[in-house]
Amino acid sequence: MRISVSQLNYHIGNFDLNKSLICKAITKAREAGSELVIFSELCISGYPPLDLLDRYDFIEKCNQTVNEIAAECHGIKAIIGSPTINPKPEGKKLYNSALVLSEGEIIFTARKALLPTYDIFDEYRYFEPEKRFSVFSLDGLKLALTICEDLWDEQPFDNKFEKTRLYTVSPMEELVKQNPDLIINIAASPFSYTKTEARENIFRDKARKYGLPVISVNQTGANTELIFDGASVIVDHRGGIYKKLPYFEERIETFETDHIISGSGSSKVEKPEEIELIHKALVTGISDYFSKSGLRTAILGLSGGIDSAVCLCLAKEALGNKNIRSLLMPSRYSSEHSVNDAVELSDRLNTKYDIVNIEKPFQAFEEDLAPLFKGHEKDVTEENIQARVRAVILMAVSNKFGSILLNTSNKSEAAVGYGTLYGDMAGGLSVIGDVYKTDIYRLAEYINRENEIIPVNIIKKLPSAELKPDQLDSDSLPEYSILDNILYNYIELQKPAEQIIEEGADRETVYKVIRMINYNEYKRYQAPPILRISSKAFGAGRRMPLVARY
Amino acid sequence: MRISVSQLNYHIGNFDLNKSLICKAITKAREAGSELVIFSELCISGYPPLDLLDRYDFIEKCNQTVNEIAAECHGIKAIIGSPTINPKPEGKKLYNSALVLSEGEIIFTARKALLPTYDIFDEYRYFEPEKRFSVFSLDGLKLALTICEDLWDEQPFDNKFEKTRLYTVSPMEELVKQNPDLIINIAASPFSYTKTEARENIFRDKARKYGLPVISVNQTGANTELIFDGASVIVDHRGGIYKKLPYFEERIETFETDHIISGSGSSKVEKPEEIELIHKALVTGISDYFSKSGLRTAILGLSGGIDSAVCLCLAKEALGNKNIRSLLMPSRYSSEHSVNDAVELSDRLNTKYDIVNIEKPFQAFEEDLAPLFKGHEKDVTEENIQARVRAVILMAVSNKFGSILLNTSNKSEAAVGYGTLYGDMAGGLSVIGDVYKTDIYRLAEYINRENEIIPVNIIKKLPSAELKPDQLDSDSLPEYSILDNILYNYIELQKPAEQIIEEGADRETVYKVIRMINYNEYKRYQAPPILRISSKAFGAGRRMPLVARY
Repeated sequence: MRISVSQLNYHIGNFDLNKSLICKAITKAREAGSELVIFSELCISGYPPLDLLDRYDFIEKCNQTVNEIAAECHGIKAIIGSPTINPKPEGKKLYNSALVLSEGEIIFTARKALLPTYDIFDEYRYFEPEKRFSVFSLDGLKLALTICEDLWDEQPFDNKFEKTRLYTVSPMEELVKQNPDLIINIAASPFSYTKTEARENIFRDKARKYGLPVISVNQTGANTELIFDGASVIVDHRGGIYKKLPYFEERIETFETDHIISGSGSSKVEKPEEIELIHKALVTGISDYFSKSGLRTAILGLSGGIDSAVCLCLAKEALGNKNIRSLLMPSRYSSEHSVNDAVELSDRLNTKYDIVNIEKPFQAFEEDLAPLFKGHEKDVTEENIQARVRAVILMAVSNKFGSILLNTSNKSEAAVGYGTLYGDMAGGLSVIGDVYKTDIYRLAEYINRENEIIPVNIIKKLPSAELKPDQLDSDSLPEYSILDNILYNYIELQKPAEQIIEEGADRETVYKVIRMINYNEYKRYQAPPILRISSKAFGAGRRMPLVARY
Repeated sequence: MRISVSQLNYHIGNFDLNKSLICKAITKAREAGSELVIFSELCISGYPPLDLLDRYDFIEKCNQTVNEIAAECHGIKAIIGSPTINPKPEGKKLYNSALVLSEGEIIFTARKALLPTYDIFDEYRYFEPEKRFSVFSLDGLKLALTICEDLWDEQPFDNKFEKTRLYTVSPMEELVKQNPDLIINIAASPFSYTKTEARENIFRDKARKYGLPVISVNQTGANTELIFDGASVIVDHRGGIYKKLPYFEERIETFETDHIISGSGSSKVEKPEEIELIHKALVTGISDYFSKSGLRTAILGLSGGIDSAVCLCLAKEALGNKNIRSLLMPSRYSSEHSVNDAVELSDRLNTKYDIVNIEKPFQAFEEDLAPLFKGHEKDVTEENIQARVRAVILMAVSNKFGSILLNTSNKSEAAVGYGTLYGDMAGGLSVIGDVYKTDIYRLAEYINRENEIIPVNIIKKLPSAELKPDQLDSDSLPEYSILDNILYNYIELQKPAEQIIEEGADRETVYKVIRMINYNEYKRYQAPPILRISSKAFGAGRRMPLVARY
């Protein structure tokens, strides 16, 4: 049997687009002689539809779109993912389903049993878990049709407090009793730079365990903060990789199941460097945020530091040099090289910039507030005013020209609250809010891999917010290599403070950093959506109480 | 048997406080001759602990606190709520448990089976659902010990798309087979003005259905946006209310089970007016936000309009007149009565105010931006600059004096995006962001129920943002009575547009309003936490994709 795998980029709630993408792929697969074409999880609605699933009209549109696509399935069958209504009088109102479409009909339905409800996933909020499983026969082959986590009944965890078996059911253990020939897994599995190999290994382990080939189909593209890397993989029954689709690209590929089952043609697959994947993920994230929102142009504040420089390079790659504009907003505390370096970078990238000095509005605020602040020393208040003046200017340009402000704060700053709410924390989208400062340097190096695009001066200078004379980040923060190590252990790996100390970090520094992380939860609550590249980004995947003691 | 019910106000992660509250109540109950004292769901950790539950050190502290409290249970037993570790190798790592403590030991454990995972609830994110149930015998009585939603296997829903039976299991149906004498339900059930009666009715219906008395124990007080109203209720076996504890107050009450079981003394309970409950909820929300964060003072921008006036009254009641300060920030577009009305209100409340004119910084921005805006008409950009200038001033005062900025936007504005991000949408806590404009008028009337506190001029004037000459809200929005009706039907009741139109709303207005709601999702993403009084507040309970078409 010939099978096509469709790795596409869906848009949540954009039924016309999703249908058109799917129908074109069906046509292409049919032309390639395929009997079956496979799409990814919830491709009809886009993933994650979140609380749109609570709206009856949204589900009606899903159903309607499924029927329209089924009507296009002439001479070929398609496996698509869609929410379907739970007809039983009890339980959640929906199932997360994989539907086999043929000649205008839904000829088979598999429903997801293992509903990820952790990190950014909330599937049990909407879906009833399935409890019964059966294989589907097609052209003499018995297919075990599974949905994403259904095959992840065992998974590795960073934190030893977590369990390898998060679920009490194993759909594949049930399905294997029915002697399938092939495992199909449709997924919507977002990118995380620490997890790409783990995901592949799950498919390879399952293939080996059951002695069955696995065809996995993931989506690509970004929906707000979640970035899907594609990388759909076809694994032979010995766990070897038969074929892997590219990262962060749409792709339709066609295979003979005989070849996969016999394991002929298994190939070693080259894995891109981690930093290259992070770079591609962020560019995809920016690009899809804009294109799917019907937006075209962006602005950012270019300080002369490395963070905004990296953001500008990423935005230029995602949107094109004509569609990104920088504002350089020096103050009385800005070093001269800040403006020069920013100008040089803009020139090299051929992107527009304007210089707007913040002195006048800053002074106006100081004068307005003088009567209220009489007798009080200057403190962080005046630093924050400068950051907020810049935000007012950036947002004014954003409003006037319909350009979206890109936020350029990094994860290390966001973690310890080294940023001003409604100041440098403003923006429609945080580009590098899930990238630690030490990885910003790796990104800069990657961007400069062939030519020096980011002036080396920007990379070499000591990090400074330039909000008071001779200020350096290191005045109030530990060195970034030390800080980032503590942050990663505390945030991603969720290790207790004492364990981080036992493993070698300085006690006082660890407790200071953790206090800063927890104290600044209120700032992150109001941060823009952050492009997610790690296994634990700030935002919807990390839900901490604000008014709490910990 | 004599039983005490403890309705207390816990603080998330503040183990010392929670333990001290619980131990004092144990002492008091023992002194009252009780054999059993009952506390509410997850009282050890506070509710909702959210992702603190993912941290092993947090769970260890819960366990330690439980043991310390058990050691205090001499001559009395206590039922407390705590997360406990799931010892099985598979499933979620925790249970949401009710523990019976006695003489230093945990003598019985009931685990929650029905885990609310909708709206603001995420319990399946953390907890494994229990599947086996047994009663607990104490002093010759068999107690069916249930946790919150365990008794809610049937519940009313606003939206007919929802199911009455959200779960496929009914713990109480299992427990009743073991012939219990009494149902105990420990809960952490937040306030919503539309649900207070529904909750009481569930207990009454269950009592009637099983012919058993129900003792329910809820917590009171607020944790960030969630406000718990207490109102623990003891229901006799005929469904009559034997006793109801007060709304929004800590209380320990002691009963004879014989009296409850025989139904003697059942009383008709007076229910406070809805608007009185909303008022109490908001005051509780402000008060606990500050006290539990170790904060004392607040500021707000007082515009002369009704929203900020109501917020000031609420804040004064919550924090005291010495701890709330207003800034009056007129512009070239402010009407004279705005300042006068604001001054009059401040005088009547005896709260501090300062007048800071925004003209100078506004002009400085206009001048700074003039080269960039050359050839462009004035538009909403200039309105937003004014709102943002006010935010910079408010935040500067907030930073300088350590006072938290209260946000004064209402739910109608938040819904349609009638507000400026980083401008009037700024603040540490949104006081009335879950109160529709029409209910703001009801609150004002309630505040003025005995004396005219809010000047009638503030209540009577036509709503205006005063950001350009002669501006009125009605220039860009439908009348608030019409708007709020559409909003309630769309947001709370989740009705499809066509249904709202069928029920009488104007087609064009409905679609315009829905477009505004959906388009402005990005603004609400960055809003402060909003005190929740409805069944569907903006914030954690309503999760909509930003980059989506709907």
